[in-house]
Amino acid sequence: MGMLRDHCGVIAVAAKEEVASSLFFGLKSLQHRGQESAGITTLAADGQARTIKGMGLVDNVFPPEKVAELRGQYGIGHVRYSTAGRSVVENAQPHSVQSQFGWVALAHNGDIVNAPALLEGLKAKGWAFITDSDTEVATRLLAKKLTDNGGNAMRAIRDLMGELSGSYSFTMVVGSDLYAVRDPFGIRPLCIGKLPNDGGYMAASESVALDVLGAEYIRDVAPGEIVRITRDGYEAQQTPAAPHPAHCFFEYVYFARSDSVIDGQLAHEARRKIGMALAKEAPVEADIVVPVPDSGRAHASGYAEASGLPLREGLMKNRYVHRTFIMPGQDNRERNVRLKLNPVKPMIQGKRVVVVDDSIVRSTTMRRIVELLRQAGAAQVHVRIASPPITDPCYLGVDFHHRDQLVAANHKVEEIRKLIGSDSLAYVSIGGLVQAIGMPKSSMCLGCVTGEYPIAIEGERVRGQHVLEDFPVST
Amino acid sequence: MGMLRDHCGVIAVAAKEEVASSLFFGLKSLQHRGQESAGITTLAADGQARTIKGMGLVDNVFPPEKVAELRGQYGIGHVRYSTAGRSVVENAQPHSVQSQFGWVALAHNGDIVNAPALLEGLKAKGWAFITDSDTEVATRLLAKKLTDNGGNAMRAIRDLMGELSGSYSFTMVVGSDLYAVRDPFGIRPLCIGKLPNDGGYMAASESVALDVLGAEYIRDVAPGEIVRITRDGYEAQQTPAAPHPAHCFFEYVYFARSDSVIDGQLAHEARRKIGMALAKEAPVEADIVVPVPDSGRAHASGYAEASGLPLREGLMKNRYVHRTFIMPGQDNRERNVRLKLNPVKPMIQGKRVVVVDDSIVRSTTMRRIVELLRQAGAAQVHVRIASPPITDPCYLGVDFHHRDQLVAANHKVEEIRKLIGSDSLAYVSIGGLVQAIGMPKSSMCLGCVTGEYPIAIEGERVRGQHVLEDFPVST
Amino acid sequence: MGMLRDHCGVIAVAAKEEVASSLFFGLKSLQHRGQESAGITTLAADGQARTIKGMGLVDNVFPPEKVAELRGQYGIGHVRYSTAGRSVVENAQPHSVQSQFGWVALAHNGDIVNAPALLEGLKAKGWAFITDSDTEVATRLLAKKLTDNGGNAMRAIRDLMGELSGSYSFTMVVGSDLYAVRDPFGIRPLCIGKLPNDGGYMAASESVALDVLGAEYIRDVAPGEIVRITRDGYEAQQTPAAPHPAHCFFEYVYFARSDSVIDGQLAHEARRKIGMALAKEAPVEADIVVPVPDSGRAHASGYAEASGLPLREGLMKNRYVHRTFIMPGQDNRERNVRLKLNPVKPMIQGKRVVVVDDSIVRSTTMRRIVELLRQAGAAQVHVRIASPPITDPCYLGVDFHHRDQLVAANHKVEEIRKLIGSDSLAYVSIGGLVQAIGMPKSSMCLGCVTGEYPIAIEGERVRGQHVLEDFPVST
Amino acid sequence: MGMLRDHCGVIAVAAKEEVASSLFFGLKSLQHRGQESAGITTLAADGQARTIKGMGLVDNVFPPEKVAELRGQYGIGHVRYSTAGRSVVENAQPHSVQSQFGWVALAHNGDIVNAPALLEGLKAKGWAFITDSDTEVATRLLAKKLTDNGGNAMRAIRDLMGELSGSYSFTMVVGSDLYAVRDPFGIRPLCIGKLPNDGGYMAASESVALDVLGAEYIRDVAPGEIVRITRDGYEAQQTPAAPHPAHCFFEYVYFARSDSVIDGQLAHEARRKIGMALAKEAPVEADIVVPVPDSGRAHASGYAEASGLPLREGLMKNRYVHRTFIMPGQDNRERNVRLKLNPVKPMIQGKRVVVVDDSIVRSTTMRRIVELLRQAGAAQVHVRIASPPITDPCYLGVDFHHRDQLVAANHKVEEIRKLIGSDSLAYVSIGGLVQAIGMPKSSMCLGCVTGEYPIAIEGERVRGQHVLEDFPVST
Repeated sequence: MGMLRDHCGVIAVAAKEEVASSLFFGLKSLQHRGQESAGITTLAADGQARTIKGMGLVDNVFPPEKVAELRGQYGIGHVRYSTAGRSVVENAQPHSVQSQFGWVALAHNGDIVNAPALLEGLKAKGWAFITDSDTEVATRLLAKKLTDNGGNAMRAIRDLMGELSGSYSFTMVVGSDLYAVRDPFGIRPLCIGKLPNDGGYMAASESVALDVLGAEYIRDVAPGEIVRITRDGYEAQQTPAAPHPAHCFFEYVYFARSDSVIDGQLAHEARRKIGMALAKEAPVEADIVVPVPDSGRAHASGYAEASGLPLREGLMKNRYVHRTFIMPGQDNRERNVRLKLNPVKPMIQGKRVVVVDDSIVRSTTMRRIVELLRQAGAAQVHVRIASPPITDPCYLGVDFHHRDQLVAANHKVEEIRKLIGSDSLAYVSIGGLVQAIGMPKSSMCLGCVTGEYPIAIEGERVRGQHVLEDFPVST
Repeated sequence: MGMLRDHCGVIAVAAKEEVASSLFFGLKSLQHRGQESAGITTLAADGQARTIKGMGLVDNVFPPEKVAELRGQYGIGHVRYSTAGRSVVENAQPHSVQSQFGWVALAHNGDIVNAPALLEGLKAKGWAFITDSDTEVATRLLAKKLTDNGGNAMRAIRDLMGELSGSYSFTMVVGSDLYAVRDPFGIRPLCIGKLPNDGGYMAASESVALDVLGAEYIRDVAPGEIVRITRDGYEAQQTPAAPHPAHCFFEYVYFARSDSVIDGQLAHEARRKIGMALAKEAPVEADIVVPVPDSGRAHASGYAEASGLPLREGLMKNRYVHRTFIMPGQDNRERNVRLKLNPVKPMIQGKRVVVVDDSIVRSTTMRRIVELLRQAGAAQVHVRIASPPITDPCYLGVDFHHRDQLVAANHKVEEIRKLIGSDSLAYVSIGGLVQAIGMPKSSMCLGCVTGEYPIAIEGERVRGQHVLEDFPVST
Repeated sequence: MGMLRDHCGVIAVAAKEEVASSLFFGLKSLQHRGQESAGITTLAADGQARTIKGMGLVDNVFPPEKVAELRGQYGIGHVRYSTAGRSVVENAQPHSVQSQFGWVALAHNGDIVNAPALLEGLKAKGWAFITDSDTEVATRLLAKKLTDNGGNAMRAIRDLMGELSGSYSFTMVVGSDLYAVRDPFGIRPLCIGKLPNDGGYMAASESVALDVLGAEYIRDVAPGEIVRITRDGYEAQQTPAAPHPAHCFFEYVYFARSDSVIDGQLAHEARRKIGMALAKEAPVEADIVVPVPDSGRAHASGYAEASGLPLREGLMKNRYVHRTFIMPGQDNRERNVRLKLNPVKPMIQGKRVVVVDDSIVRSTTMRRIVELLRQAGAAQVHVRIASPPITDPCYLGVDFHHRDQLVAANHKVEEIRKLIGSDSLAYVSIGGLVQAIGMPKSSMCLGCVTGEYPIAIEGERVRGQHVLEDFPVST
Repeated sequence: MGMLRDHCGVIAVAAKEEVASSLFFGLKSLQHRGQESAGITTLAADGQARTIKGMGLVDNVFPPEKVAELRGQYGIGHVRYSTAGRSVVENAQPHSVQSQFGWVALAHNGDIVNAPALLEGLKAKGWAFITDSDTEVATRLLAKKLTDNGGNAMRAIRDLMGELSGSYSFTMVVGSDLYAVRDPFGIRPLCIGKLPNDGGYMAASESVALDVLGAEYIRDVAPGEIVRITRDGYEAQQTPAAPHPAHCFFEYVYFARSDSVIDGQLAHEARRKIGMALAKEAPVEADIVVPVPDSGRAHASGYAEASGLPLREGLMKNRYVHRTFIMPGQDNRERNVRLKLNPVKPMIQGKRVVVVDDSIVRSTTMRRIVELLRQAGAAQVHVRIASPPITDPCYLGVDFHHRDQLVAANHKVEEIRKLIGSDSLAYVSIGGLVQAIGMPKSSMCLGCVTGEYPIAIEGERVRGQHVLEDFPVST
């Protein structure tokens, strides 16, 4: 189905002073979670919300004069990386509407798998929608619940959660309050912090957003928890959580910033340990370990450490290149690759190279990297991957939508090795991965590497018995 | 209350070829009806609508590459001049939503006076709104009616009209069709045309939009009429019209382009005749007649013709100045005035000047003009105004919102003359105005000069017995 | 030859306060003299000059924050309409360089006909040039003369004038002083004014730039005069002037703003009188006189006045259209014409129309206008032109560069009438034109309508005996 | 004095096809050498040069449509980081002029120390200058020499070099040819390459620009060498070189990209060896080695390798932050620091940290880093610096202009340690540095760490006897 699914980052801040610049800095620290659009909603003292959003990086959307336009001490923010559907400003978040009981604005990270069904139901009642995003469905539904509950936000959110199936970490403006909400499986990250100097409270997708504001990390939002955040504290209410959480392992492997602590684990440390596990599981006689920058850097350092091989920055990333330059001609396509990633010939030449990256999705990038290394004179190229083969789609917030885009869905490891042209190829095992992350396997969502999902998805298998709701959803 | 009220221009085109550039040219010819924002919605062959809108002039919002993005042979467009509320892109039109029966998009010229009441009613049902405009209320309500009527657009629009009170000329996308709709009083203009070479059909606020596309003027949309427009023709359905129409006289005095024909009258001709009436009603011994460019030009030519006085362009407008330049300092404020309007000293000096303009609202502009003429050496300055004194607000689409902003609401003519500092001041009479326009008085809305409105407005008098609906509306 | 020739407007202001915003307003009032680029040079108290220039209208190049960057109480400005060569920012003016004796910056209106020869001479000495404009030649040569004269600006300018042949009205920064300079024939306009409240002195291409600053018109700069302008007064030095001036008649016909007084004549009055002369020389039995807006408006009012025919605005100009919109398709080209100029059918239909414009250059525009009027139902179309046939190129500052672009260079009047498709065609006579402007024929440059030029141009005839320098120049 | 001194990157390409996109990609790979402005000059088949330049990154100045405007198979490019003077577009390069013998355009990396004297000499002859840069002096002087030599470019360049004193790596368009020129000391880098598929030849500041175009590295341009580059090969002419070269050591320490090979040495390898030397010279009992990203990364890996301590990325750089955000308030200044560099608390806490960076200039940055590490709980912080103390200014192309900005010019190491607040502080020795770079000390410029310069600078000591010209120059 064609609804919008995104990687995203969210934030909420309740402060004792104007909050827009805090939201700006927080979002900027979450920029790695989405570079396509950015938005902020603030709630002024008079109860009026104001939303500014636009396409591009946080600092493009929010020059200082725009930040200054946003008045109020409560607010939420969002960065988005669309993985499907239209890259248009209408789909930027927060999604913000006026209800009978004031403003309702949502910033959302995750995928609501039954959004299409909910949408059809609402349309059948005569409702109409501006975007094709699950966030608008959730926002309008919340406004309805709020009205049904006479303006009681806590009950309205609880009712909303009763209807949603999927992954969601929300930050919300509801009437005059701020909320942070996490789905019953805790699939996407969300944590709470306290601003310095008793300045207020906040929530964000990752702890780095707390760090940049000098805020103290308090704890993660629990699966199924609703947290009301005020400038003086926070108040939590637990709704039924799943028997076992289903934290996305891919946050640790790639998506989170490596200096973020998520559900108790430092991402960098998890990555280093995965690299060490990989070295033990798939050793190889070689001369140097080369990370694919920046995604394979932490994994590679673990591999080097455990293998005793020297770590060398044999692939150099151009720090000033953030996109592919559209110039006609085959030559220019080649140049684009080399502009982003330059193999350091004097380091590579004649060497047996272990190249380490976080994952292989389609295999085209890794094929080019192997080619670059061979052109630079590598004697051998051994590829080591810090995640198990991605064999199945993600329906819960990562950009692996279709099996036919996943090389490992249709090819065995040896076939992939041939495709990418390396001398050897190895992936970390699921067991090694789980142990490195240091969390029970039953607490993780491993859907994309096992084909078993925590939530019922039409046409897919459900993980063990851990399903909270099992009505089939069409996607 | 704070709902958005605007001057606007609307258009709809159904063509046998791609329609976006026709909408662009049509809107550009309606640019005088609104310079704040512009928008176009087109309906592609696959039933998908696409809306692009933005702040600024039509050509700023629609560079050629944007026009090229808009696919489809059916579409509507809008230009807006906000007269209250927020100048933000969210309030730009068309307002476009997806319903169970496809897209519903509205472009609206007018003021729906019971929009606040309708809005409260919908919110009480749990609905939520993105903008603070009456157009969103109408759009969402239409989507609801469409669903209630199982997708029958004609019935849905009829039902919608049954709930709306106020002035409206709509162009609409409803599902796969295009509509043009005018309120039961025909307050704002709307006419139908046929594209050249059997290329399709169209509707627009003014006939100049037909002219630019080489289209043939067919007729005005009748008060209370719903017209479905297709590439092969049009189909009209009459809903109950008011016993007497209430065409806004101010379209003839100022708002329409002088080369537009509205409800059968050429605006320029009406203006010239008003000027002639004014010369007869308020003659004065003088040397020259000077128009205030460009708004008083046609009136002044009539005045000159009837009085036998020579017409002289004694106030020169700078064609390259479209806004006030914000530079600090009193000097620069003065310069702004002179930059826009330069008195031609050699023409003015020693002369008894009759200066003619369309209307006086607050009186500040006219006071400056009299001052400029005196500084340039005018021996006498006689002010002649081509509308009666504007004593009452407009609730139906013109930017006279508050009595305290209308100098004639609180001052007699002689007081106003003193305020503006002229030697004499005269307004055309209501009788003279009506005769010049050439339409029965009972067919016009003269609310702002009589205080009697065709529609019930809380706290205001209703015109004669001609009220269609008489429930009081809060505004 | 390929050197750059432009229409332009120039200004210089010496004030007792910061001068940038005065230059801004002055340039904005001269915007009609050039819309392609704009520039300002100011001289700060420390002797440092700063130049900002760019492509586009004055207000696009100079948003308030840019104006605020320009410090100093002395400055010059320029607007440019390039008529040949490259529309690139390098060619924007003022042209500003640092010499041994401080900054030298020039803003130039006119054409230096021997610039190519001077350029070759300087290049032969090892000099190099950034632009292909005559202004850079003049600027560098002035810097050289300044050095040769030990920093004496007056002598340097005098020496410069000794080498230049052609038309030039300059405003200049030289070291710490400001100058206004006019060529020995006074071909392009230039006048001096006094700022209000003893605030300083200024010079500008037209008196409208004085008006906008509230400045008092003092006098025109005399042909061959160098005027040093200070905040306390001005000091003039006369260099050898031509025996007879050669004021460009086309300033009166078209180029100057009609509210400007140039060499003692109000342009609007000259235009009206030309129209009256035309009515006497070429009367016609007709119903209405229709101006081509805005260029024919003043002429048409004179024609109407003298002929007794009513003046009607039968061609309506869209005030919001400043350029041709590039949309593919023949339809869209047609729409562009009608977007700019809409014939008012109800005024035209069945009428014998006299349409009046300032001039015919290529004839394509007038052919379209005649066609528009016929399509609108005109019974007859009589074209009256307020200048004599333009049979010869202009080498001195107007955009008539090549004989093959001038329809009257190669066709008789009757042939042109057939080309444009009118019922009759008449031009004002040279005698009628001269008398209307009210200046001796010997004081005017009539090169483009007589083929006799005040300055020796290779391959062209020289006017009477009035040549100052007669060495042939290659162009 | 105030002449402009810059870090820069230069490139020249002569190809058998359109060259603009090659210049674009080459410049983008040199972006680290200058982010303030970018420019390209291409030479079309008709001998006309076209220059486009602007403020900002290469991809901001050159969107695809701008690249497409640049026609020709020969061209040069420049990126600039201004270290003094005005950040204005006039000072962007290439500097391009038209001479008697065609176009002369220069892109320059280095500092011409006698430029002020040359400038004064030329001004005294009546010459004038648009910029305040040494590049314009060189460009105009070259145009003069070209004329003096009857258009012989090789002789003109040789003559130019005879007058210049200082550091310069030039790429040039001279008439119809392309040149690469390096000063007699070879202070700034410059190398030659061959395009793939016999596609042409090129020169660039660093070998990474060859890599991105798939070009083969041929050799560095020798000190004092003039290389004419054509699409079919290159032709070199040696002018008198200094007895000993003076390659800037700081290119190896910081300025060059670490994957560049400069005068035979891979920058990354030099950096790693400097780190190893530092570990041997200044060992410390500690737990982890932490690089300051990205400048200290290679050095730190060498330090870790030699010391046996684990390397940890304990300071995380935000990849999306390229500038400081100007938001008012002390809080926001703090946030700016943490936004750019986040200490990874779980890695740092309780650890004895060795933090490694390339250099200390003013000491403020390092003080903040030490503070961040202590706030994150570091038990000890030991600072190790991969260059000797910078005690003296650079006059030859690096941004160390004034002694009073150099903390090591005025403080002993122990004083600096106190200033930055670390537990220990050590710099690599000059001997250790020289050995790590692997080049004779006599072949390097060590001016900023020894106070002895290869070129006579007024008020400074000259290195050994290796002076080529010893007339004192005023700077």
